[in-house]
Amino acid sequence: MRALLYNGQLRWTDDYPLPAVPPGEALIRVRLAGICNTDLEIMRGYMGFQGVLGHEFVGVVEACAEETWIGQRVVGEINCYCGACATCAQGNFTHCPQRTTLGISQRDGALAEYTTLPLRNLHPVPAEISDEGAVFVEPLAAALEILEQVHLRPTERVIVLGDGKLGLLVAQVLSLTGCDLTCVGHHPGKLDILRQHGIDARLSAELSGERADCVVECTGVPAGLEMAVSLLRPRGRLILKSTYHGQVNANVTGWVVDELTLIGSRCGPFAPALRLLARGLVDVRSLIDSIYSLDDGLAAFQRAASPGALKVLVRMT
Amino acid sequence: MRALLYNGQLRWTDDYPLPAVPPGEALIRVRLAGICNTDLEIMRGYMGFQGVLGHEFVGVVEACAEETWIGQRVVGEINCYCGACATCAQGNFTHCPQRTTLGISQRDGALAEYTTLPLRNLHPVPAEISDEGAVFVEPLAAALEILEQVHLRPTERVIVLGDGKLGLLVAQVLSLTGCDLTCVGHHPGKLDILRQHGIDARLSAELSGERADCVVECTGVPAGLEMAVSLLRPRGRLILKSTYHGQVNANVTGWVVDELTLIGSRCGPFAPALRLLARGLVDVRSLIDSIYSLDDGLAAFQRAASPGALKVLVRMT
Repeated sequence: MRALLYNGQLRWTDDYPLPAVPPGEALIRVRLAGICNTDLEIMRGYMGFQGVLGHEFVGVVEACAEETWIGQRVVGEINCYCGACATCAQGNFTHCPQRTTLGISQRDGALAEYTTLPLRNLHPVPAEISDEGAVFVEPLAAALEILEQVHLRPTERVIVLGDGKLGLLVAQVLSLTGCDLTCVGHHPGKLDILRQHGIDARLSAELSGERADCVVECTGVPAGLEMAVSLLRPRGRLILKSTYHGQVNANVTGWVVDELTLIGSRCGPFAPALRLLARGLVDVRSLIDSIYSLDDGLAAFQRAASPGALKVLVRMT
Repeated sequence: MRALLYNGQLRWTDDYPLPAVPPGEALIRVRLAGICNTDLEIMRGYMGFQGVLGHEFVGVVEACAEETWIGQRVVGEINCYCGACATCAQGNFTHCPQRTTLGISQRDGALAEYTTLPLRNLHPVPAEISDEGAVFVEPLAAALEILEQVHLRPTERVIVLGDGKLGLLVAQVLSLTGCDLTCVGHHPGKLDILRQHGIDARLSAELSGERADCVVECTGVPAGLEMAVSLLRPRGRLILKSTYHGQVNANVTGWVVDELTLIGSRCGPFAPALRLLARGLVDVRSLIDSIYSLDDGLAAFQRAASPGALKVLVRMT
């Protein structure tokens, strides 16, 4: 089959073997997949991953042991867990130490004609959500993970730092709580997407000196951490969403003195993401930069890596 | 008066001016003061402080506008706040941006014959607490700040990392919750202090691989952070107590992937510290390394800075 791989370099192939389907898993014909910053970080060494890239997708189940799934249009949670260990027993499935992760760790991803996932990871996509919407379920779930972890009060002052793909989703999701939210970025065009929905969005130079109760760091770069801390009030909460290859030099003593709380936040729940999309409460269509065919996958990655690019999608058919 | 100063170097003097007493403050004749690691960090550049050192003390009120205080034996909260700003209005007095801090920031400390503090910072010391107990109220309050910030469940597995003065106080305080606690250090003699009270205490080599729900980082050194993270389960909580001069190189992406919560923790409430001491629920006497006279203050600091030293106290009379 055709696939986009990373094995030290990005590569397009048309003779990648069709995936074997282990018991409990489904063979999924991918319709549409997204390119995430994590894919770009993998190409900088993140996770040391080699294989088929891609973990944001919508597809159709072609084969599996449970007939009711066959033909269903699905999205899939990307962490595949053992279900038997102490971590899973606590309900922390996305942290299972035996986990494999679609297109990120020990499991080929979805930037290919076919992929596989355990049936228990799949969610049917309601008819009112288009493929172009459904392909955003995975990053939208990651935005919702913040609200799964943290009680964000409607009276709080919140700053979302970063106007990239994830920042724009986070700002939209958090704004639904009614909190006093500002998204801070440096791309006027991206900030306009939020403004069109009545969400306050500013260049960092336009920020007042007032500190926020909660800052969400979505810049995707190590320097975002220090800026996020500088925007936070004492005893404030800092949600960390960025993952990148490499370490950060940090003033940890300053966090102690200001008694900050830092909360790492990764993958999130798919069901509420599907509910918000079905109700049209999150605008993902405006986040689409461009759609490439799988055969133009290398060009798609080139576009995704270019400064200021929004979500680049890859269509398989 | 006699005083121990830091002004680029540690200095003993017998002709430091008696402090002026601003409105609302009390002149306090210091009886006994402690040397804290923070004092040693100040001598490495922390906070850029210059002046009389010392923020752990017990003394007697000699002069103030409210007569009932005069002659009372007191301890004092070290952060002096404005009471008028937005931060104070939220009750975050210890974070007042206008604050001065006894012996740490813009306010002479207690390693002298006399010191001053606002009356609202003072707490009378009950008769059942000796001077040698009362001088530990400030660091004991810092240990209690953890329980003020975090709901620590009695069923949780907790590791206190560090067997220094603060680590031994934190381990004692947290063990009162009934949690499954181990203090990890590298001084067998210090760990024995905890073992004598039935608290599990081990050298790091004696730890099993099992991860904790909550780790409290009390090592006082930058390297403690990475070790603390390595002891924590996914979605665990890391309480940061160490303050030191300098920055740390950290794997922040790892915190995101494991969805850790890091919580900076500084000064805490005095009233519960006095209650625990009055009931004899915390053993501070075993933490006393030695007691010097103020005139031997330079030797006291030398001892406090020597490896493995426990609490060095300085008696003023």
